[in-house]
Amino acid sequence: MNYKMMGRFLAQILSIEGIFMVPALCISLFCGEDNATRAFVLTIAIIAALVLALALICRGAPSAFYAKEGLVCVGLSWIMLSLVGCLPFYISREIPSYVDCFFEIVSGFTTTGASVIPDVEALSNSILYWRSFSHWLGGMGVLVFLLAFSGEKGQGFTMHLLRAESPGPDVGKLVPKMRNTAAILYLIYVALTILNIVLLVLGDMPLLEAVCTAFGTAGTGGFGIKNDSMGSYSPYLQNVTTVFMILFGVNFSCYYLLLIRQWKNVFTDEELRLYLGIILGSILLVVLDTMDLYGTLGETIRHAAFQVGSIITTTGYTTTNYDLWPSFSKTILLCLMVVGACAGSTGGGLKVARLLLLVKTLRRNIRQMLQPRRVELVRNNGRSVDQQVLDNTNAYLAAYMLILFTIFTLISLDGFSIETNLSATLCTFNNIGPGLDAVGPLCNFSGYSAFSKLVLSWGMLAGRLEIFPMLVLFSKDTWKRR
Amino acid sequence: MNYKMMGRFLAQILSIEGIFMVPALCISLFCGEDNATRAFVLTIAIIAALVLALALICRGAPSAFYAKEGLVCVGLSWIMLSLVGCLPFYISREIPSYVDCFFEIVSGFTTTGASVIPDVEALSNSILYWRSFSHWLGGMGVLVFLLAFSGEKGQGFTMHLLRAESPGPDVGKLVPKMRNTAAILYLIYVALTILNIVLLVLGDMPLLEAVCTAFGTAGTGGFGIKNDSMGSYSPYLQNVTTVFMILFGVNFSCYYLLLIRQWKNVFTDEELRLYLGIILGSILLVVLDTMDLYGTLGETIRHAAFQVGSIITTTGYTTTNYDLWPSFSKTILLCLMVVGACAGSTGGGLKVARLLLLVKTLRRNIRQMLQPRRVELVRNNGRSVDQQVLDNTNAYLAAYMLILFTIFTLISLDGFSIETNLSATLCTFNNIGPGLDAVGPLCNFSGYSAFSKLVLSWGMLAGRLEIFPMLVLFSKDTWKRR
Repeated sequence: MNYKMMGRFLAQILSIEGIFMVPALCISLFCGEDNATRAFVLTIAIIAALVLALALICRGAPSAFYAKEGLVCVGLSWIMLSLVGCLPFYISREIPSYVDCFFEIVSGFTTTGASVIPDVEALSNSILYWRSFSHWLGGMGVLVFLLAFSGEKGQGFTMHLLRAESPGPDVGKLVPKMRNTAAILYLIYVALTILNIVLLVLGDMPLLEAVCTAFGTAGTGGFGIKNDSMGSYSPYLQNVTTVFMILFGVNFSCYYLLLIRQWKNVFTDEELRLYLGIILGSILLVVLDTMDLYGTLGETIRHAAFQVGSIITTTGYTTTNYDLWPSFSKTILLCLMVVGACAGSTGGGLKVARLLLLVKTLRRNIRQMLQPRRVELVRNNGRSVDQQVLDNTNAYLAAYMLILFTIFTLISLDGFSIETNLSATLCTFNNIGPGLDAVGPLCNFSGYSAFSKLVLSWGMLAGRLEIFPMLVLFSKDTWKRR
Repeated sequence: MNYKMMGRFLAQILSIEGIFMVPALCISLFCGEDNATRAFVLTIAIIAALVLALALICRGAPSAFYAKEGLVCVGLSWIMLSLVGCLPFYISREIPSYVDCFFEIVSGFTTTGASVIPDVEALSNSILYWRSFSHWLGGMGVLVFLLAFSGEKGQGFTMHLLRAESPGPDVGKLVPKMRNTAAILYLIYVALTILNIVLLVLGDMPLLEAVCTAFGTAGTGGFGIKNDSMGSYSPYLQNVTTVFMILFGVNFSCYYLLLIRQWKNVFTDEELRLYLGIILGSILLVVLDTMDLYGTLGETIRHAAFQVGSIITTTGYTTTNYDLWPSFSKTILLCLMVVGACAGSTGGGLKVARLLLLVKTLRRNIRQMLQPRRVELVRNNGRSVDQQVLDNTNAYLAAYMLILFTIFTLISLDGFSIETNLSATLCTFNNIGPGLDAVGPLCNFSGYSAFSKLVLSWGMLAGRLEIFPMLVLFSKDTWKRR
């Protein structure tokens, strides 16, 4: 293991976090929030000290950097980002327990949106901003940001890191240089976020609220800034958010293809079609099932579309207490939680692309069972899929299931109902946010013990980083010297 | 498709069912149960007519028989066995609705043990016998029986059928001839069942009750003959049942190895070790968690061992209402439901062997992620596992998950709680029996609609036949002419 290189890398990640904390500091100064100002200044000072120390210790690092280092680096840097990023909450005393602070910021960076705060509206503006900004930074990935805009060289280095941090079964390059791909992705991300903010402000939402809401939408995070999430906003604002949640759940390479006018490739993309199909189908079923709960058909459609869009993209905003919906609609939401958004988007879950690959592999295996001598390839968008990708997809499903059951069992020690524990597990591991029953839309995760909160935090990180970077930290093979 | 051959085959299966109905008829005559006698006589007459008709229509069948025909035959013959096997319930009017009768016998043949009957003790003796006997016949498989003791020739024929009906990722031959393997398995099965009956009778259980209980244990079925399942029996009888449930969850080839004195191969068998390890570990955890619910440590251990043994082997007998246990213990039971028993046993679920393969494949993939140039094989009991078996295991997991979510969603239309629906899905698809909440140990499945009962019946068949024979019935490729 190239520890020095890893240390230098962690220092860079930390300094980005420190720089991104400055706007929050400005807001706290502007609003005269003394406690928060002190917290941000102290945290930035701690970051500066850590960066300096790491830079001194890790001078003269060899440049060898392999897949192993890439995976470990991603896992460790996200843990470190969270350990430091939650300090403003803790130092300002706005969240008293450090474990709660850690859970909250992990939930932010991983774009989960599960909260331990009973009264969000009591938080100061700057803390609310930092909490929502963590979604935006975590959505596209802080390492991707580093790669896009820092001077770090080395194609292998870039590739290994990007592959470990990006969601989906396979990372495609948009342009020959990985670095430029990362930059293009970030520019699209920024542009869409700004558009979202503008449309929210046009609907009379105050600027800071609009910024925070857009951050939560863009990262498919879902931290609300009101206690009822998006429930009290106007239908216009809710609908804008519905549309943008669904947009941020699309594979970003589709937007790049649109930019370079390859319309056909976008419209024939199998994942995109299935994603939109699932959304429309689910909205229809939920509308039919919840018709008599709301006054008008329009209202039913608005709530159904919002909740379906929010859950499949793993955002987690709500406009209505879906815990009161009939079983069938609740079950559809539970299924959508597992499906998740498109690969290469900011959303979580299993990903539509993986679902597609699993179904196709299954179909191929059934055909081969029927005619053992036939040889058939799995194709995606017309091209045959590499066996390695299929193997990894299968391994991913196996790991996904094993981790799901492990978390589910561990948190059941706290004695909540099966429904609560199952939805809490699904909602954190798939980076959604609110669940059902005792962790439903109007409740929060504060009832769980510190142990369960740490387990769920690990689950959120594993979900966001697609499991393996968090799993290799526990593997003997990672730490043994060669 | 070789329809004539399939028809001839179905006729044979049906005649076996008819023959096995004779003991039930004798019991009804002996006990003077007129309604039941009439029902059995009529059913046997219907079977005779069907067999005759099929034999006439399917004369002169060509002998070509491929994997496809094998899969379809297995699926169809189990459906037909159930459609006819439930007639005694229906004709005798002991279960008034035909869908309920169908659900009940499917639950019997698939060794599930989920019941729609609120008052089991009101059933007549012969009907109770037939209901429990369906577990015994379904446990080892009626096709396996046919292959073992009929005169049907053709190695390919035998292999394709046995492979489709036997549980587990890979079917091993014990002896060079598949037919002899099937016979050996059945003889071990009969011997263990008789031993079980003798031990129950020695504990003062009436003979008919002992026979029915042993049938349910041997097939890991779990139809009780008392309304409280095994709750009112003596600790001795409960403990005997615990031991035999666990014994019938072991891969039967282990018993063959014991018979030919290959002790070492049994004791080093990885699946057996993991299976026993999971059982012991789960009992320990449940004992620690439920300590204060029962009077003495002995009673706690007895209940914990019984329930753990019953659930992991997917039997479904109960001695206590585990729905009242704390969340942690209930969650352990839910996890055991998915794990299931050993491959090549009469139990259901995912199977310990598959779990082992999934974990090993996952470990290999993680190692290869860490060192991409390393090539590593997955080994089982020292021998490397064929890639085809790994592929099929992965396809199995994918199919398992997709079906689980489909059933879960479809039955949620009835409006029961998430916990009820989830455990009903798990308990039927894994062939266990009782679930939690509204389908808990003291409740039954009668509340579900006819549609849900049919969906759950399909799920039970898919679970027992390891998914693919029930899945290919829906595949276009199966029915298209070449």
